[in-house]
Amino acid sequence: MGLVVQKYGGSSVADAEGIKRVAKRVVEAKKNGHQVVVVVSAMGDTTDELIDLAGQVSPIPAGRELDMLLTAGERISMALLAMAIKNLGHEAQSFTGSQAGVITDSVHNKARIIDVTPGRIKQSVDAGNIAIVAGFQGVSQDKKDITTLGRGGSDTTAVALAAALDAEVCEIYTDVDGVFTADPRVVKKARKIDWISFEDMLELASSGSKVLLHRCVEYARRYNIPIHVRSSFSGLRGTWVSNEPQGDQPMEQAIISGVAHDTSEAKVTVVGVPDKPGEAATIFRAIADAEINIDMVVQNVSAASTGLTDISFTLPKTEGHKAIEALEKTKDRVGFDSLRYDDQIAKISLVGAGMKTNPGVTATFFEALSNAGVNIELISTSEIRISVVTRADDVNEAVRAVHTAFGLDSESDEAVVYGGTGR
Amino acid sequence: MGLVVQKYGGSSVADAEGIKRVAKRVVEAKKNGHQVVVVVSAMGDTTDELIDLAGQVSPIPAGRELDMLLTAGERISMALLAMAIKNLGHEAQSFTGSQAGVITDSVHNKARIIDVTPGRIKQSVDAGNIAIVAGFQGVSQDKKDITTLGRGGSDTTAVALAAALDAEVCEIYTDVDGVFTADPRVVKKARKIDWISFEDMLELASSGSKVLLHRCVEYARRYNIPIHVRSSFSGLRGTWVSNEPQGDQPMEQAIISGVAHDTSEAKVTVVGVPDKPGEAATIFRAIADAEINIDMVVQNVSAASTGLTDISFTLPKTEGHKAIEALEKTKDRVGFDSLRYDDQIAKISLVGAGMKTNPGVTATFFEALSNAGVNIELISTSEIRISVVTRADDVNEAVRAVHTAFGLDSESDEAVVYGGTGR
Repeated sequence: MGLVVQKYGGSSVADAEGIKRVAKRVVEAKKNGHQVVVVVSAMGDTTDELIDLAGQVSPIPAGRELDMLLTAGERISMALLAMAIKNLGHEAQSFTGSQAGVITDSVHNKARIIDVTPGRIKQSVDAGNIAIVAGFQGVSQDKKDITTLGRGGSDTTAVALAAALDAEVCEIYTDVDGVFTADPRVVKKARKIDWISFEDMLELASSGSKVLLHRCVEYARRYNIPIHVRSSFSGLRGTWVSNEPQGDQPMEQAIISGVAHDTSEAKVTVVGVPDKPGEAATIFRAIADAEINIDMVVQNVSAASTGLTDISFTLPKTEGHKAIEALEKTKDRVGFDSLRYDDQIAKISLVGAGMKTNPGVTATFFEALSNAGVNIELISTSEIRISVVTRADDVNEAVRAVHTAFGLDSESDEAVVYGGTGR
Repeated sequence: MGLVVQKYGGSSVADAEGIKRVAKRVVEAKKNGHQVVVVVSAMGDTTDELIDLAGQVSPIPAGRELDMLLTAGERISMALLAMAIKNLGHEAQSFTGSQAGVITDSVHNKARIIDVTPGRIKQSVDAGNIAIVAGFQGVSQDKKDITTLGRGGSDTTAVALAAALDAEVCEIYTDVDGVFTADPRVVKKARKIDWISFEDMLELASSGSKVLLHRCVEYARRYNIPIHVRSSFSGLRGTWVSNEPQGDQPMEQAIISGVAHDTSEAKVTVVGVPDKPGEAATIFRAIADAEINIDMVVQNVSAASTGLTDISFTLPKTEGHKAIEALEKTKDRVGFDSLRYDDQIAKISLVGAGMKTNPGVTATFFEALSNAGVNIELISTSEIRISVVTRADDVNEAVRAVHTAFGLDSESDEAVVYGGTGR
């Protein structure tokens, strides 16, 4: 039996009872003969409470100090978990990100992992301990300052440690049973996916599925670390994410892995752009200089009569104001007519590697939407994904229609617990 | 202007308002041209809350993990203080005990400082920053584990850093105006002491005065670092503790520095001990083997008729049960008659280097107690201290009588805020 990395989110360790429940599960893995490394997030609302405190002393808290502050959260949960495990008669030691060798760059609040040097962790588990590691945090390579990894940081810590320790699997424990064919809050008949490839998982993650973040899946793919997403409450088998199915996993991937939706984006349309070289470049340079990440970009052929075209793109709603401001400044240079901003949109995406070899997928997708009376405003595709933008009001109807059209509905429609994954 | 180390206790940084008030005071010192290093404790009740959490997951939390847990407390307060200072337009950086180079032994929960290597702190203040350091914590020399220093740990951190950085002074900010000639809660006319020698302060600290702990004063004396104990609320000059008075401090030390009292001890009497060599040794070896620290020890001459004597000693009440248990086991070997345990006692101590050369001090002390109708049960003296044990009920009366007898009463009897110093 090899080494297993387990990661527990904030909702799993929200209070003393949760910590004791997690301790039992960790000990079980140890009893089964595994070496066990556990990555924990901060307890429940700790992070929000600390951010609130920071806001009380400073309107714009300094990044370095905010990281120092927030990392207190995991310090508390990891020490408590180690105590709870020792109380069950097993040896455990907790380690900060820095002690665990999580080396990052110096970008506070959203540092990236540069290297993992898990010498102390290796030593600890080789000596028979269960090692508990603070998720979400590291130490900067140059300044030796404490850093945090930003959203999804704890999952990334877990995958990075799993890679550095050559783990058999990285188990991500959360408050849902796994990755579903659609958001179970919207589609009652959504099915839990038993196995999904890294590629499809990456597309789902960037299309609005919140169970795993793109960043953590990308890391796992690079180092080929299988992820097992599962519930910390049920003990059931969850969803395996890996290159190839293993053991008793289904050998063949479904044509369609799932339907994701995202209502966090807005649409910007630049109306009446002269159809000549360099105009689009000017527009998107302005957006890039404002450090705004955009998602879909669509431009259609220009009307012959006017020589003008429209360019649309989507971006996080939170960046909308900044984008409009940046574009207004280019108006004279580009010579467009006007800007339209629309934050009442939804993006619906169909993901599946099988669509490459199944020509009817796009047609079925659009027919399903049409039959449901849903109007399509933008379309964008990749090799294994089709995304459309619709009215926000239509999103639930649209997702359900597509889910049914591709035969993804489960037989039963059991209730499923669903929540966020924390950080 | 040189470097100043300031230490703020938990009550000074209990909430966002407190932290902002401390930030202003720190910035003032910086504006006055000093390099400033600040040591902070955890906010208000944080430590107690964390200990409570630990109790919920484990009846006897492991020392290593308890230290990891508790050090989250200073991490929070120091990061918030750094943010608050930056918000006032000054540069600040926070550092953990480990980052600040506080190297300790491996005794968790009550580690001792072995060395301080403040390279990063020096660099930070030389670059113009105010450096904020977590009190109460360090890192063990051999295992590189996080340790805590136990009671009075933050004060000791401050003094140790002051010594390593060759500071002009170590300012200990607390919620009282300084060291008083007696506990102001008992003696309304107690006076704030302007200057006191290390020696007298050490005796006061070990006799029940709680403003500074023995350990921190001992460290300051060894490295000759002047301590200035003062209020974080008033801004008034407090009490200077040093080898020699400096500047405008009073040139001559008073005969008597103050009257301390202590009601935390109990008295054990071993009755009917055969008066022959080795009996006392057997008794106190048993106490030592049980790792009990004792305070006063008194033995009187034996009664000629019986050849038996009584041996009394005092010890913390919390150790009483353990001591009786240990002594019971020696009964057959020593052959004493019985054990008496009494936890309704108080110790009253008169401290002052001047008593060495003033023969009347002892007589005045006993007369004052006698006039107040207070019975003396035990007496023990050092070169600069006389301590007596009385009934606990008599303690306030006794302290006031002695305070008046030695002319320590102030003219006014203003109300004084008084509280503990936290850790």
